[in-house]
Amino acid sequence: MINFDIPNISHHLNDDIQYKLDHKTKPIGSLGLLEDWAAKIARIQGRLSPVFTNPVVLTVAADHKITEEGVSPCPTEITWQQVNNFLEGGGGIGLFANLYGMDLWVADAGVDYDFKSHPKLIDVKIKKGTDNFLKGHAMTMKECKQALTNGKNIVDRFSKNGTNIIAFGEMGIGNTTPASALLSIYANISVEDSVGPGSGLNQSGINHKAKVISQAIKKHGISANPIENLARFGGLEIATIAGAMLQAASQRMCIICDGFITSSALLVAQEINPKVLDYTFFSHQSNEQGHLKMMKQMKAKAILQLELRLGEGTGAVLAYSILKGALAVLSDMTSFEEAAITDTTHIRFDK
Amino acid sequence: MINFDIPNISHHLNDDIQYKLDHKTKPIGSLGLLEDWAAKIARIQGRLSPVFTNPVVLTVAADHKITEEGVSPCPTEITWQQVNNFLEGGGGIGLFANLYGMDLWVADAGVDYDFKSHPKLIDVKIKKGTDNFLKGHAMTMKECKQALTNGKNIVDRFSKNGTNIIAFGEMGIGNTTPASALLSIYANISVEDSVGPGSGLNQSGINHKAKVISQAIKKHGISANPIENLARFGGLEIATIAGAMLQAASQRMCIICDGFITSSALLVAQEINPKVLDYTFFSHQSNEQGHLKMMKQMKAKAILQLELRLGEGTGAVLAYSILKGALAVLSDMTSFEEAAITDTTHIRFDK
Repeated sequence: MINFDIPNISHHLNDDIQYKLDHKTKPIGSLGLLEDWAAKIARIQGRLSPVFTNPVVLTVAADHKITEEGVSPCPTEITWQQVNNFLEGGGGIGLFANLYGMDLWVADAGVDYDFKSHPKLIDVKIKKGTDNFLKGHAMTMKECKQALTNGKNIVDRFSKNGTNIIAFGEMGIGNTTPASALLSIYANISVEDSVGPGSGLNQSGINHKAKVISQAIKKHGISANPIENLARFGGLEIATIAGAMLQAASQRMCIICDGFITSSALLVAQEINPKVLDYTFFSHQSNEQGHLKMMKQMKAKAILQLELRLGEGTGAVLAYSILKGALAVLSDMTSFEEAAITDTTHIRFDK
Repeated sequence: MINFDIPNISHHLNDDIQYKLDHKTKPIGSLGLLEDWAAKIARIQGRLSPVFTNPVVLTVAADHKITEEGVSPCPTEITWQQVNNFLEGGGGIGLFANLYGMDLWVADAGVDYDFKSHPKLIDVKIKKGTDNFLKGHAMTMKECKQALTNGKNIVDRFSKNGTNIIAFGEMGIGNTTPASALLSIYANISVEDSVGPGSGLNQSGINHKAKVISQAIKKHGISANPIENLARFGGLEIATIAGAMLQAASQRMCIICDGFITSSALLVAQEINPKVLDYTFFSHQSNEQGHLKMMKQMKAKAILQLELRLGEGTGAVLAYSILKGALAVLSDMTSFEEAAITDTTHIRFDK
C-alpha cells in the first residue's frame, strides 16, 4: 500500500488561537464560523498568524467508458473540449480562478483525446478513459496506484513552489456514476440514495444509472481495501485527486474540496488515512443529493450553500475567497490593545 | 413625506438574460443561485453585461441613550472608539473592505463624541446620541426626516462618483434594541420573538430588553406612518441608512444589506417604498434570531450563512465577493460558441 504519512495538526495551539481571536476588536465569537475556520487554518499551519502562499486550484480530467451504458445525457467530447477551454481561461473554473486569485492547473488523468502541450496542462494520462466498470474493473490495481502516485507527485511540485493551499476540481463526463458508487459503498447507503441527475438526467435516467451501479457492485463485490474499490468502481481523475489530497495533507497544506466528485475522492482518501480530513475545508453543499450524505459521512459542514452542481473546482475557488477573510481575522485584524478600544472579553456570549 | 422615486427594474430583459446564461459553457442552471443573482444584477443595471463600478461600503454610526436602561452589556464608548478604528482600517469592516476591495466610508449620524476631521468620515451628526425611547421619542420627526435626507445626500455623492453598488453597515452600542422594536412592529410579531442577545446579553438581560421595548411601544403607540415609527423607536444611524438605501434604489444601484440592524433600516425603507427590495441583496443570515424573521417578512434569502453577529457591514462585504462571481458568470464567462464547445442547451435539468 502506498504510504501517506500525515502529521498531526497543532492542537496544542488551541488556547493561544482562542486568546488571540477573543482579543480582536469585536464581541467574543461574533465572526461565527469564520473564527472556527481561522482556528483550523492556524492548527494546520502550526502558527498563530497563518498566511496563504501560492494558492493553486488543480482540476483533474478523465473520461469514463461507463457512459456507453447511457448514464449521462452529455456528449463525451465535452471533457476534452472543456479542458482546452479551461486552459484558455474559459469555463466556470477559468473564470473564477482568475477572479479570485488561484493559479489554475489542469491535469489530464485519462481524457480520450491527444492534447497539444500547454504550460498549464499536466500530462498524467494513464489511459484514454476509465474503463466501463459494468464490464470489468474501472482500472487495474497497477493503474489505480499509478494514479494515486501521480496525484502525489503533482502536489509535491506545488509544495516545492511554496503552495500551502490547494483547491480541487474535476472534469469528466459520466463521473457522477463512479462517485455515486463510491458513496454507496463508503456511506453504506443504497445505490438509489446515492444517485442524482448529474448534468441533467431525468428520473428514468437516474433509475437506470442506479441499476448500472447496482449490477456492477453485484458483479465485482466490495473489498475491504479502499484502493481495491477505487480500482473497481472509481475514475482516473478521482484516484489522482485522492492521491493529491493525501499528499497535500502530508505537506500540511490547506485542502479545499469542491462538490460531489472531489468529495468522492476524499471519501476514499480518508479511508486510506482519516487524518486527511483535519486539513480539509468543504467548500459548498452541492445540489447533487448524494453530496449532503457524503458530507454527513465525513462529519463536515460546507462553507457555502449556493445550489451549485457544476464541479470543475468552481465552488472550491468561491470558498477560497471566504477563507481568505477567515485567515485575515486571525492574522490581520486589530486587537483591543492595538486599537486602544475598551476590552470586552469579559462579556461571554451564551450560545 | 420625502419622495423617493424608484424606477422599475428591467424585467423586459428576462428572456435575453436567461438565453445568455443558458449558453455559457456549463450545464443549464448548474451555477445555481449565482445565476439568479447575476440575472438580478442585470435587471437592476438594465443591461446584459453588467459591471460593478466604484464599490462602496457605508458604515453609519450613532449612539443610543436607551442604553441607560441596561439593554447592552457593552460600554458605550465602544461606538466612538470603533469609528476611529474603522477609519484607520481596523475592526472587522476596515479589514474586509480592504481585503475585498470596497471603498469604506464612515458616517457619524449621532455619535456622542467630537471626532477630528478625517477624509473618510462623513459628518451628518444630528445630535449626540439617539434619545432614550423609553422616556420620549428616539428623535423628533424633523430630526428623523433630516437623517433620511442625509442618507439620500451621501448616496448622491457616491452616485456622482460612479458608484453603482453599495454595501451598508452600522456601528452603535445598543442598536439591536431599536432594531428589535422595528421588527416587532413591521413583522407583526411579539417583542419577545424579536429580541436576542445582541453583543452578548444573557437570558435575563434579553428578557429585560423585551420589557423595555414593550413599555415603550405601549407608551408611544404604533403609527400608520413608517417615518413616525422610525422617529419613535428607531436610531439615528438606522434612519440615515434607510434614506441612503431608498436613494441607492432611486439611482439604480445594487444594495447589499448586512445583518440585523441594516435589515431593520430596510424594513422601514420598504414600508416607505417597497421597490427598494428589487435592488437589494441580503448578504448573510445573522445569528441574531430576529434576523431570520426580518428576512422572512421581506421574502428574502441570504447569500451567506456564516453565523455572524458583528454588523459593521462585515457580512455585506463578504457577500460582495460572491456577487462579483455571479456578475462575472453573466458578463465574462465563455459561451458554447466562443469556446467551440458542443451546445448542450437541449439538456434540461428537472428541479
